[in-house]
Amino acid sequence: MPDLKAYLNDKNSRINAGLQNFIRENTRIAEAMRYSLMAGGKRIRPVLCIAAAETVGGSEADVMPIACAIEMIHTYSLIHDDLPAMDNDDLRRGKPTCHVAFNEATAILAGDALLTLAFEVLAKHHSGQIIAIIADAAGYKGMIEGQMRDIAAEGKLLSLEELEQLHRCKTGALIEASVISGAMFAGADSKQIESLRNYAGHIGLAFQVADDILNVEGDPAILGKAVGTDESRKKSTYPALMGLDKSKAFAKTLIEKAIESLNIFDVRAEPLRDIARYIIERKR
Amino acid sequence: MPDLKAYLNDKNSRINAGLQNFIRENTRIAEAMRYSLMAGGKRIRPVLCIAAAETVGGSEADVMPIACAIEMIHTYSLIHDDLPAMDNDDLRRGKPTCHVAFNEATAILAGDALLTLAFEVLAKHHSGQIIAIIADAAGYKGMIEGQMRDIAAEGKLLSLEELEQLHRCKTGALIEASVISGAMFAGADSKQIESLRNYAGHIGLAFQVADDILNVEGDPAILGKAVGTDESRKKSTYPALMGLDKSKAFAKTLIEKAIESLNIFDVRAEPLRDIARYIIERKR
Repeated sequence: MPDLKAYLNDKNSRINAGLQNFIRENTRIAEAMRYSLMAGGKRIRPVLCIAAAETVGGSEADVMPIACAIEMIHTYSLIHDDLPAMDNDDLRRGKPTCHVAFNEATAILAGDALLTLAFEVLAKHHSGQIIAIIADAAGYKGMIEGQMRDIAAEGKLLSLEELEQLHRCKTGALIEASVISGAMFAGADSKQIESLRNYAGHIGLAFQVADDILNVEGDPAILGKAVGTDESRKKSTYPALMGLDKSKAFAKTLIEKAIESLNIFDVRAEPLRDIARYIIERKR
Repeated sequence: MPDLKAYLNDKNSRINAGLQNFIRENTRIAEAMRYSLMAGGKRIRPVLCIAAAETVGGSEADVMPIACAIEMIHTYSLIHDDLPAMDNDDLRRGKPTCHVAFNEATAILAGDALLTLAFEVLAKHHSGQIIAIIADAAGYKGMIEGQMRDIAAEGKLLSLEELEQLHRCKTGALIEASVISGAMFAGADSKQIESLRNYAGHIGLAFQVADDILNVEGDPAILGKAVGTDESRKKSTYPALMGLDKSKAFAKTLIEKAIESLNIFDVRAEPLRDIARYIIERKR
């Protein structure tokens, strides 16, 4: 997928420029926010937001603030998840995590600040409806509930259904909101929204299955973090519950279904189709 | 001020009902959110929001969601400030703090969830302008910067000017946003906004001076928390920098100036005037 690589590089450079633009202070808290925000994330969520908008005829520039706000929310959740009281991770994307590079108090506040800034950015550019979709996905019935379940699940053996529910909250909700908010702002009709919701549900779950697989057989140097940690923490994962081969087949089926959901769209949905494939082929 | 007591009781009962209404789940995270949100706060900020709206002819019901959202933001900031990595407080309003009653991870997430819910509530009911005012006050140039300065100041002797700057960020910004958002949503003109901004600036600072005084000579049983902690932590406070008597005189002057700022308003500003007096006369 050489085309997708160029597409992602192109989008990422403008997403990074957009993100830089929102934090211009030289205070220590701004430094910590920038440190985590610009640590080289894959930018999957903002790219999905833009690609969904373009699929229904919208423009990148119009949805860029939404895309940036979602990446801020994603980054805040990583900073807080990495804290000693949660996953206690020292390394993220090959760099010390925020609380290691700064300190715990600063990391908590940098996360808080990124979450708050996301809503400030959304408020300045977008409708209440869009903000509500994103807040709902990020909130205590979505992403935060997912993290609660993730913590509660440590050391326990979940059923496949429980694991799927966990991931639908923890990563699925915000991925879905990325796609839907972009498309909705670009004026998608209800049939288009339904197709995109289907697409997002499938790639969101596939994303997590792929993450689980990378934690088993990924290359730590490329991933920028340790592997084998799920097993040592006795986490319920797809490879643990269904084996590695079945997990790979499951991820593949999810991606096929995701691409099938896009049948009503024309060539402008090509990036969304490529991203779906990339999600299970990526090495990091 | 028997009238103010009735006024506050009346407002508080409807604010509490409003807050209860926004969190109806029975999950553990919802439990933690409710625990801190309903722990018997004074509700100063939501009352200010409503009183400011009523001063310019608005209605309580219209601004209630704004008032509730601001109290959620205030509560999230208390939960995070109390964490071991920050102020490490075990007691708040006479009850174990959130991380003591639940655990640290849940407290971090409950704070995150209250902040997110605040913006969801605002998004469903209010304009981008109002959301931006509140997000700006709560964000990394406002309340969060205040907490950063507060942590950095521990063990150091600040100048009076530095102390005022710290408090203008840490508590002043959200108090100002409470007053301004309520008034603005109720249709205040720019002259009214200016007067109210002046009022809020003065009571915000007076509130902190009064807090510092209560930490010296308050009754722990009424306060619901230990006193003398500022001194043992060597915190820069008004009593430490200017002495107890001068601090009391300073608070009184601030309140007089706050009340003076309300001269352009009629009898409907009476609650705001009473609240100003209450801020330095309160025992908790």
